[in-house]
Amino acid sequence: MKEFDTICAIATPIGEGGVAIIRISGENALSIASKIFVAKNNYDVKNMQTYTMKYGNVIEIDNKEIIDDVILSYMKSPKSYTGENVVEINCHGGVVSTNSVLNQIIRAGARLAEPGEFTKRAFLNGRIDLSQAEAVMDIITAKTELSMKSAMLQSNGALSREITELRKYLLNVLALIEYAVDFTEDDEDIIDDNLVLQIKDGIDKTIFKIKNLLSNADEGKIIRDGLNVVIVGKPNVGKSSLLNALLKEKRAIVTDVPGTTRDVIEEYINLDGIPIRISDTAGIRETEDIVEKIGVEKSKEKIEEADLIILMLDASRDIDEEDKAILDKIKNRKYIVLLNKTDLDMEISQEVRNNLDNKIDISAKTGKGIDDLKTEIKNLFFNGEINSESLIISNTRHKQALYRSLENCDIALNRVNANEYLDLISIYITAAMKALGEITGDELEEDLLNKIFSEFCVGK
Amino acid sequence: MKEFDTICAIATPIGEGGVAIIRISGENALSIASKIFVAKNNYDVKNMQTYTMKYGNVIEIDNKEIIDDVILSYMKSPKSYTGENVVEINCHGGVVSTNSVLNQIIRAGARLAEPGEFTKRAFLNGRIDLSQAEAVMDIITAKTELSMKSAMLQSNGALSREITELRKYLLNVLALIEYAVDFTEDDEDIIDDNLVLQIKDGIDKTIFKIKNLLSNADEGKIIRDGLNVVIVGKPNVGKSSLLNALLKEKRAIVTDVPGTTRDVIEEYINLDGIPIRISDTAGIRETEDIVEKIGVEKSKEKIEEADLIILMLDASRDIDEEDKAILDKIKNRKYIVLLNKTDLDMEISQEVRNNLDNKIDISAKTGKGIDDLKTEIKNLFFNGEINSESLIISNTRHKQALYRSLENCDIALNRVNANEYLDLISIYITAAMKALGEITGDELEEDLLNKIFSEFCVGK
Repeated sequence: MKEFDTICAIATPIGEGGVAIIRISGENALSIASKIFVAKNNYDVKNMQTYTMKYGNVIEIDNKEIIDDVILSYMKSPKSYTGENVVEINCHGGVVSTNSVLNQIIRAGARLAEPGEFTKRAFLNGRIDLSQAEAVMDIITAKTELSMKSAMLQSNGALSREITELRKYLLNVLALIEYAVDFTEDDEDIIDDNLVLQIKDGIDKTIFKIKNLLSNADEGKIIRDGLNVVIVGKPNVGKSSLLNALLKEKRAIVTDVPGTTRDVIEEYINLDGIPIRISDTAGIRETEDIVEKIGVEKSKEKIEEADLIILMLDASRDIDEEDKAILDKIKNRKYIVLLNKTDLDMEISQEVRNNLDNKIDISAKTGKGIDDLKTEIKNLFFNGEINSESLIISNTRHKQALYRSLENCDIALNRVNANEYLDLISIYITAAMKALGEITGDELEEDLLNKIFSEFCVGK
Repeated sequence: MKEFDTICAIATPIGEGGVAIIRISGENALSIASKIFVAKNNYDVKNMQTYTMKYGNVIEIDNKEIIDDVILSYMKSPKSYTGENVVEINCHGGVVSTNSVLNQIIRAGARLAEPGEFTKRAFLNGRIDLSQAEAVMDIITAKTELSMKSAMLQSNGALSREITELRKYLLNVLALIEYAVDFTEDDEDIIDDNLVLQIKDGIDKTIFKIKNLLSNADEGKIIRDGLNVVIVGKPNVGKSSLLNALLKEKRAIVTDVPGTTRDVIEEYINLDGIPIRISDTAGIRETEDIVEKIGVEKSKEKIEEADLIILMLDASRDIDEEDKAILDKIKNRKYIVLLNKTDLDMEISQEVRNNLDNKIDISAKTGKGIDDLKTEIKNLFFNGEINSESLIISNTRHKQALYRSLENCDIALNRVNANEYLDLISIYITAAMKALGEITGDELEEDLLNKIFSEFCVGK
C-alpha cells in the first residue's frame, strides 16, 4: 500500500436530493472524521469495526455546534474502494448541508480530492487495473443498459484478463527468442527450426486474438458513446413525427443528460441498446436560397460530425433541386433516405425512386417502415447483429493501443518469416507488449495517467 | 409500529456522480434485497446485523446476470430513518446504473415510493413530528448556512418542544374550566375567583409565548425562502456593477440551483446569511416610451413579486420623467434608491436629492456605499439584527396556525374577562389547541398531510 494524504469529496451528484455522500479516503480518514462527528451515546468512532455504521451529528470543529445529523460508515484498508481506510458520511442531500459537512472535514485535515482521485488510488493501490478504472466512468455515463452491461464486463476484469493472456503469449515469445539467441552465440548458423516455429506460433496466436478483439471495436465505440444521427429535410417533411415515432416506441432511458456545462442538453433514443443522439437541424432549409445556405456553419458542422445522416423526403411531392443538392452533399457519407408520407398518394417519380440508394418507404404518421429503419441502422453499423454477451472494445484509447500492438506483431512476424536476426525482432515484440500494457496501465507514462483520471467526475 | 408495504426510491440527486443510494424501507426490505443481491462469499444477507454493510453484486432477478457491484447497508427497525427496516444500496452513480438497480428492486417486490414517503413514514411511525419532517425538506433546500442552521434547530425538535409546552398550558386551562363547570353545576352563581385568575393566567401565558414566536416570523420566512430583490434602472446606470460588487464581496454558496424544471436557474447572493435572489429586469427601460412600457407584463410581475425594489439612478445626471415614473410606481413598496456614480461629478440637483426617501450614495465601481446598502436591507427586514441562535418560525403554514391559535386565545380571554360562561369559552381553547396541533401534526386532516408530503422530493 502506497502512502498518500487523506482526501475527501462529495461522491453523489450535486443537487437537491434526500441524501448525499461525502467520502474520505486515506490513512487518517477515521481520525479526521472523529474530530467532526459525535456518535450517539458518545461512542468513540475510532473503535469502529470495518463495514459498520454509526448514527450521530456532524459538528462545527471550533464551537461544536451541530451542523447536520448523519450516518457514518467505515471500510478499513485494504477492503475498500480505494484500498485505503474509507469513511463515508451520509448527510442531508442539499447543496448547503453537503458543503457545510465537507468544509468541516477539510478543516479537520483532509484535502479536497481531484477529479477521479479515489479511482486513481484504487488503481495505484492495485485494487483495479486501468481498464477497470476507465470502466467505472463508463458505467456512470452509460446511456443504455447495453452500454452499462458492456462497461460492467470491463469493470469486472474481462478485458484485463484478455490483455494479461496476450502479454503472457508475447512474454513467452521473448523467452524463446532469448533462448534462441543464447544458443546461437555458441553456434551461429544453426537455429532450431522447432524454436522458430514456436516463436511464429506465439506471434500468430497473439495477432489472431488482437484481431478478434478489434473486430467489433467500432460497434463498441457506438455502444459506449452512442450514434450521432442527424435528420435533415425541409420543413414539414415529417422530422418531428419521425422523432415522436421513435421516441414513442422506445423508452428513452436518458432524457436530459446535462454536460459539464448546464447549457448543453442532449436527447437520446435507445434503439435496441444503442444510444442514439438525435441532432436537430431545424433551420437548415428555412431560406429559399438553400444551396448557399446549406453552408451555414452550424448545420454543416452537425452533418460533418454525424455518424449517420437521415434525409427525409416527402414522397407525396416530387423532389426538387434543393433535395438533390443535399443528396449530393451526403453521397459519400453513411446515410439513409426516408421517403415519408407514403400513406398519401405517391407523387415522386419512379425514375427518381430508382436512382435513390438506401431508401426506405415510411409513414412517420402510421408508423409504417419504422422497423425497417431500425433494421437498416443495425445493418449499417452492426452487420445486423448486436452482440451483448461478449467483451467489446469500446474505448478509443484501448483500440489505438491494440492497433499499435498488432502493427508491431505484424512486423515481427514478417521479419521472422524473412529469417532476420531474432534479437532485432524482440524489439517489436517488446513494443507490442508495451502497447498492451498501456491498456491495463502496467506501462503508461504518469502524465497520460493523470490525463485519464482528470476526465473523471469529482467524488469518484 | 404501523404496517405498511415495502417501498423503494433513489435517495440521491439524479445525475452523473460517483455514487447513488437506493433506499428500501418496510417490513420486507431485507428479504426483497436478498433476492437481487449476492454478497461476496455468498453470505446470506438475511443474517445481517443492524448498522452493518456488505459488499456484493446486484443481479438480474431472472437470469442472475450481474448488473452492478454495490455496498448494501442495513438498519433494523425501529432505529432507522423511517422507523422500519431500511436497506440502502450504494451503487454506481449513473442514470442507467441507478435505474437498473431500482428496477430489479421493484421486480423483487418493493413499490416505488411517492415523494416524501420515507419521511411521511418516519412521521406516521412516531420517529419525528410534522414540524421536524418539514424541517428535513428545509435543510435540503436551504440556501445559506443561516437558513440551514434555522432548519436544523427545527429538525432537532426546538419548535416541537415549544408547541408541546403551549398545548400543555391550554390543556391545563381546559382542565380548570372543566373543574369550574363541574363546581358551578352544584352552585350556579359562585365561581372561585382564584380559579378564574388561574384560567386567565394560563391563557395570558400562552398568548405571550405565541406572540413571542410570531415576533420574528417574517424574518424567519426570509431566512428560509430568501429575499426577492429586483434591481430596476436604466441601461448603463450600473446594475451589473452593483451585482458584481455584491457577488465579489459575499461568497454565493448556492450559485446554480435548478428548480424542478431545469430551465429555471436562480442566482443567489448570500448577505450575512440572508439568501437574496436577484432578478434581472433588463429590458424594462429599453424603449423611450417608458411610462407605457413599464406595463410590460413580465417586468411588472417581477416588481409585483419582489420583497424589495432597488432603484438605481445615475447621480452624474439629473433625473428625468422616466425616473420619476418609476419612483411613482414603487412609492408604496419597500424600496431603496441608490444614487450611483457618486465617484463622478454629482449633477443631480439638491432639491431632487432632498425629495428622495431611502436613498444611499454609492459607487458600484469603487465599492463605496455597498456596506450602507447591506445595513439598510437588514434594517428594513430585520430591524438591524439577524438573530441566528434562537428558534425562528420560518414556515408560513406554522405562522398561520399560530395566528389562528392566537386569535382563539384572544377571544377566550376577552370572554373570560366579560364573565361569559366558561363552557362556551372552552370551545375557543380547544380550537387554539387544535391549531397548535396542526404544527406538530398531532391534529391534521389526512389530505392536508398528504399535500405537505407530496411537496417533498422523491427519495426523502
